[in-house]
Amino acid sequence: MAMQMLSKARVKYIKSLQVKKYRQQEQRFVVEGKKSVLELVNSTFHVDVLIATQEVYAQHRERFERSADECITAKPSELSAVGSFRTNDAVLAVARMKPNIPFNVELGEFALALDDIRDPGNLGAILRIADWYGIMKVITSPESADLYNAKTLHASMGSFTRVNVYVAELAPFLSSISVPVAGAFLGGESVHGMGWGNGAVVVIGNESNGISKEVERLVTRRITIPKFGGAESLNAAIATAVICDNIRRNA
Amino acid sequence: MAMQMLSKARVKYIKSLQVKKYRQQEQRFVVEGKKSVLELVNSTFHVDVLIATQEVYAQHRERFERSADECITAKPSELSAVGSFRTNDAVLAVARMKPNIPFNVELGEFALALDDIRDPGNLGAILRIADWYGIMKVITSPESADLYNAKTLHASMGSFTRVNVYVAELAPFLSSISVPVAGAFLGGESVHGMGWGNGAVVVIGNESNGISKEVERLVTRRITIPKFGGAESLNAAIATAVICDNIRRNA
Repeated sequence: MAMQMLSKARVKYIKSLQVKKYRQQEQRFVVEGKKSVLELVNSTFHVDVLIATQEVYAQHRERFERSADECITAKPSELSAVGSFRTNDAVLAVARMKPNIPFNVELGEFALALDDIRDPGNLGAILRIADWYGIMKVITSPESADLYNAKTLHASMGSFTRVNVYVAELAPFLSSISVPVAGAFLGGESVHGMGWGNGAVVVIGNESNGISKEVERLVTRRITIPKFGGAESLNAAIATAVICDNIRRNA
Repeated sequence: MAMQMLSKARVKYIKSLQVKKYRQQEQRFVVEGKKSVLELVNSTFHVDVLIATQEVYAQHRERFERSADECITAKPSELSAVGSFRTNDAVLAVARMKPNIPFNVELGEFALALDDIRDPGNLGAILRIADWYGIMKVITSPESADLYNAKTLHASMGSFTRVNVYVAELAPFLSSISVPVAGAFLGGESVHGMGWGNGAVVVIGNESNGISKEVERLVTRRITIPKFGGAESLNAAIATAVICDNIRRNA
């Protein structure tokens, strides 16, 4: 493996991948930061290029060389110049997107369906929560934030490498499955009391508008997180965590 | 009540309150956006000045005039120029800080103690969660994010008006109370199984370093959120929500 210099053309290419259009075109994305890159090289993603400081490269040489087609060392200043976060001065990688492969949700299984979660930070946080609770299937509507956005990847803290994300229109998907479809609404069944024996696809609504009318029609279990105080609502990621915790506890 | 113009001196004054030092000096802070300002005028905070667009002012005139010493109308562009968020073009208010008054936590009561939660977004999210679960006392260490930071207030979605926040060194505070002190650690008691009959102060650790050594020594109940998948950890606000949900469910 030859150590290369970080060329101007490469810098330009990597920076272009900050834009969704170019990520789509190239079918590549950029993973930044030590924690995320270490999860990446231990995953089934194909890594084209890995760029690290001498120090980080020396620490993980064997792992990096086994996983990436090409490894390059660079100065911290070069790395932070090419990345999208100021603090990413240790390592970044260019990896190949995975194809958008449909999955089924079998009776007794759990999945999340994200109905236009627009904020990449929320999407990443939800993937991290799903991963914590062992819910490895997440369907995201086409209007949801992009899995491969730098902020999504960063907020997922590496969980994007484990959770299967399938981008699809929710209504046809939810119509095609036989497990219950759960969604949070006022006055639904309390998550503190209910059983989940048949599994479920849990729909998480948009940050401002909640669950869309079209998807609401397909919800077969209206659920509610009991409230004990004055706040009007919970953030989408927070609600996801509380629901997942109750699922795992009661299932 | 006379409607005034938004003077240059006033714009300068309000902008200065974006900086913690000036907030401290003036003992005043700025609340931005309709949702938060409506919560503010319905709270016990003293409102010095309220600046709204003609439209929002007309909608809430009575409420605004009853609560604020002074009301001013302004154009959306003027409002967004003086606020710290681009989207705050409807209304903002200058209110007086509350004095930092100690509280006690009685047997059977619940409170949160934030051990250097540095991110204002996390602090605001935690206040919103505390409010949802009716946990109305939050102690924050002096190194934690500022309650009156625009991002904290924004993320709290108005809950800052209801939850009592007391800034204090955690170790002396926790030494002085008779309720159990709970903190999340690996290998602790599962929150899914435990009872909370005596109440608790739940310590939430710093985003990167968790609970400090000094505070850990005062923890009398080591608790754990059960994990079912691959993620290494949960975000501080997410963990808070799951713990609060389990407290209210099991108490």
